[in-house]
Amino acid sequence: MDTTRKQRFDAEAAQLGYDFSGKLLIGGNYSPAIRHGNTVHISGQVPRVGETIVVTGEVGGGVTLERAQHAAAICAMRGLALIAQAAGSLDAIDQMLTVRVYVRSAPDFTQQSEVANGASDLIARVLGAAGTHVRTSVGVVQLPKGASVEVDMSAAVASAR
Amino acid sequence: MDTTRKQRFDAEAAQLGYDFSGKLLIGGNYSPAIRHGNTVHISGQVPRVGETIVVTGEVGGGVTLERAQHAAAICAMRGLALIAQAAGSLDAIDQMLTVRVYVRSAPDFTQQSEVANGASDLIARVLGAAGTHVRTSVGVVQLPKGASVEVDMSAAVASAR
Amino acid sequence: MDTTRKQRFDAEAAQLGYDFSGKLLIGGNYSPAIRHGNTVHISGQVPRVGETIVVTGEVGGGVTLERAQHAAAICAMRGLALIAQAAGSLDAIDQMLTVRVYVRSAPDFTQQSEVANGASDLIARVLGAAGTHVRTSVGVVQLPKGASVEVDMSAAVASAR
Repeated sequence: MDTTRKQRFDAEAAQLGYDFSGKLLIGGNYSPAIRHGNTVHISGQVPRVGETIVVTGEVGGGVTLERAQHAAAICAMRGLALIAQAAGSLDAIDQMLTVRVYVRSAPDFTQQSEVANGASDLIARVLGAAGTHVRTSVGVVQLPKGASVEVDMSAAVASAR
Repeated sequence: MDTTRKQRFDAEAAQLGYDFSGKLLIGGNYSPAIRHGNTVHISGQVPRVGETIVVTGEVGGGVTLERAQHAAAICAMRGLALIAQAAGSLDAIDQMLTVRVYVRSAPDFTQQSEVANGASDLIARVLGAAGTHVRTSVGVVQLPKGASVEVDMSAAVASAR
Repeated sequence: MDTTRKQRFDAEAAQLGYDFSGKLLIGGNYSPAIRHGNTVHISGQVPRVGETIVVTGEVGGGVTLERAQHAAAICAMRGLALIAQAAGSLDAIDQMLTVRVYVRSAPDFTQQSEVANGASDLIARVLGAAGTHVRTSVGVVQLPKGASVEVDMSAAVASAR
């Protein structure tokens, strides 16, 4: 790709219609990101933009697959932004490692993998081959603040800060 | 803080009214803790004291937020005790890394983060800044033995045993 | 044990009545396995054999504990096969690390740990002491394609490929 990761991240943000450049830190006795050696772990992200959870409700119930994929993409953008903050930049990401996608699911909704593609495909568009990861997607009964999707991640980052 | 981690752990145990000094090992072909390099991983902990799961039932249904936070604190105490066993002592914990909090949730209960604070706040009180971690909290439909909360963890520990 | 890990793996496959020697790779922008340093992470595995999910439905509802344990064993076999592919062979596994077992659970089904034994016991039979792991088992409302069980894993593998 002849664009930079940052340019592609910004293009995805524009496409989603949201700004991910602000402070994403959350209160409480935990942290949105922890770096240990050359691994960065990210707290579970809900599709929050500013103060608002933009996609809430049961996927397969009131929330469509398409909206859930949108939610997963927002979660992934937040995750990438946090990894970039912890590692210095998106270019410091050597390899995405794990992505877990929790989908608030109606009892008969079985497309958790398809929802998760909303996160995986976005990561691939921004990071290219370095975005490949292992993934687990499951259907949960409820999520914090009624969010439709929650995503957590880990990534290998460059040793030098 | 001018108390030791062990003193603060013991104070929390007294406050909770339980003893966490005994053997926490469980049977079966898995282990409560595995050390790999300078990382310790902990099996999912339910709020068990001795042979009893002390908080069972659906959070937001028969179980209040306060009881669920109490359950999360017990899970966290068990996790800290196991990390200390695997690493030699609480002082060998360089940094908590990940905490995942699974809350058995009534369908309309959305305070999984608040439940998880019961674990995060306890870890902070015992470990101080080394207790900061990334966190994922989700609402699940059921947990082993009907427990209201399950918590798993990982931590970075000192290289020398 | 005086058999090799590969022999025991093949014996388990014969016992289960399935072939795990084929290509397990899945499409999409994620990977079934990622190696980072001497750790291999595995994507969540459902009890798929070829194109078919062989155990679907709600455990504790239409699906018995025994069938769910069978499903967990198939998931574990797939995970072991993927780790072996990523690491070169089953003999390259130094130590299993983490196993997470997601059980699609009827609301009153509380034997998630017993389901997870289907995975843990199989891993122990194949790998012996190197198969010991930490484990988290939870009850979820639904899983991809209606699977009854999903399992993800990580393992420490030999440094030299």
